Amino acid sequence: MKDYAFGIDIGGTTVKMGLFSTKGEKIESWEIPTRKEESGAYILPDIAQAIKDKLAERSISMDNVEGIGIDVPGPILQDRIVNRCVNLGWGVMDVAKELGMLIDIDNIKVANDANAAALGEMWKGGGEGHTDLVMITLGTGVGGGVILNGKIVGGHFGAGGEIGHVLMNRFEEKPCACGKKGHLEQYTSATGIVRRAKEILAISDRPSTLRDLSEITAKDVFDQAQKGDVIALEIVDFVGAVLGGACAMISCVVDPEIFVIGGGVSRAGDILLSTVRKYFRSGVFHASEDARFALATLGNDAGMYGSVKMVIDAGSKAENV
Amino acid sequence: MKDYAFGIDIGGTTVKMGLFSTKGEKIESWEIPTRKEESGAYILPDIAQAIKDKLAERSISMDNVEGIGIDVPGPILQDRIVNRCVNLGWGVMDVAKELGMLIDIDNIKVANDANAAALGEMWKGGGEGHTDLVMITLGTGVGGGVILNGKIVGGHFGAGGEIGHVLMNRFEEKPCACGKKGHLEQYTSATGIVRRAKEILAISDRPSTLRDLSEITAKDVFDQAQKGDVIALEIVDFVGAVLGGACAMISCVVDPEIFVIGGGVSRAGDILLSTVRKYFRSGVFHASEDARFALATLGNDAGMYGSVKMVIDAGSKAENV
Repeated sequence: MKDYAFGIDIGGTTVKMGLFSTKGEKIESWEIPTRKEESGAYILPDIAQAIKDKLAERSISMDNVEGIGIDVPGPILQDRIVNRCVNLGWGVMDVAKELGMLIDIDNIKVANDANAAALGEMWKGGGEGHTDLVMITLGTGVGGGVILNGKIVGGHFGAGGEIGHVLMNRFEEKPCACGKKGHLEQYTSATGIVRRAKEILAISDRPSTLRDLSEITAKDVFDQAQKGDVIALEIVDFVGAVLGGACAMISCVVDPEIFVIGGGVSRAGDILLSTVRKYFRSGVFHASEDARFALATLGNDAGMYGSVKMVIDAGSKAENV
Repeated sequence: MKDYAFGIDIGGTTVKMGLFSTKGEKIESWEIPTRKEESGAYILPDIAQAIKDKLAERSISMDNVEGIGIDVPGPILQDRIVNRCVNLGWGVMDVAKELGMLIDIDNIKVANDANAAALGEMWKGGGEGHTDLVMITLGTGVGGGVILNGKIVGGHFGAGGEIGHVLMNRFEEKPCACGKKGHLEQYTSATGIVRRAKEILAISDRPSTLRDLSEITAKDVFDQAQKGDVIALEIVDFVGAVLGGACAMISCVVDPEIFVIGGGVSRAGDILLSTVRKYFRSGVFHASEDARFALATLGNDAGMYGSVKMVIDAGSKAENV
């Protein structure tokens, strides 16, 4: 195995670049802007240039770079092909091939961003020490990743781990961001929690400290629930029931050892985890009742870690053949 | 690879024994009774004896047997350990080790019966040609199996592919056979379909040809629906909506290329598949809309096929290292 590898997380605004040792230490990370002009044509050239500049700056030879791992906010096929990425302006593109033409590296691995984050959390985060893990990221939307035997489950159509779009309520009439109806994201994202709060406050006159706020956030809901506000507690209970129910379903499909919950909403901490766990245990098949729940710890770096992990794993596998 | 292997499916009443060539042909299959006396202590000795007798009868040397694959109606850990199997009277037992002490074979693989059936259908049945597959068996209960990259997803707690216990309705008040409430099995098993029919017939006086029957079966419901009976069609629609919704969830977790539907209820054929597909497409994340639906074709032999496939795969892997 060579000494260095890059883990790169492409977001809609910035690209997070990470230089790692192949022993798994992050040496340095930095960001470059995501230039979305001309259907994102500059994104990969910018990344290739940033890698070359960093290697020159540190006097590291390209021959000593094991590979490049990249994650992208879109569905990925065969660890290399993005199947349309609206956020970046990309259509169907073989990212590994395109980047390989710009920089002389064979070992290039590509993953969906949420899947890479799950792998990162498995390796160095809230799921460290486990190999069968499901991560759920509760932010503006809801993302997810499934890791089995230490590897990302990418899915035949690139939709493996799209936990935010698990169908929870086939009678829902309002649309999810994806256009379909009744998906997990509609109930457990920060946006969904605020929507629920507003609905509950609107249908009654019951007192609630949430009524004193000019603008309600998901954080407010959890903060007020911690302080004992009854309506806020009801909302937290609802979020926990829906998310715990989703985890119970997921266990009957892939039966992970641990669920790792991340994203802004997960900062609610114990009140969220304990509610989710309660509903999980009540609904799940008995064999899986002892699955663990943990909080993510890597924050926005998770994707970078997961991306470089794919490259290190591919390198180890090649050495062991 | 040696020339022969055994695929064995242990059921609560009979053990299905299969002698296969390692090229994948079934040479002969037969059954022996499942003796459950004394906590199932005779089951593995009976199997070992049946194998020895068959080899003697056909003058096949033990040295030319690649291995033995077995499936069991209970959760399996690490391809070898059964974690309690009430139907057979077994507690926690290392099946591979116990059988290996009775017969001199190293390559012994053990799987849950529904998971083995899924692997069998992938190999020689309704899912032939695919490697990412989910099988759902609609019988008295509902079983399932998840196959990714051609391998069974057994799960950390042995509950991988327990599709019958996917939580579908957290408000359900009646219990599933497993004791929890609101699981898929309660709505889409033969038993569940009959229960639904009786409920719907009881709450109104609307005419239905189902009322003319002294005892309703799931088959009657599908038969009358085919003939246009409105209430039977409503029940089929409900079953399709619940099962299609479950498949939509499953796609957001493991995103298979194909769903294979088996079990007695699946004899309903097109009317079932087309209803399931309709609700699947309406609820699933867009990337997975083109997942295929097919009927299982191996019937009760699927477990035997899947069991021997594990052994052949393990043999191939050992040769390729």
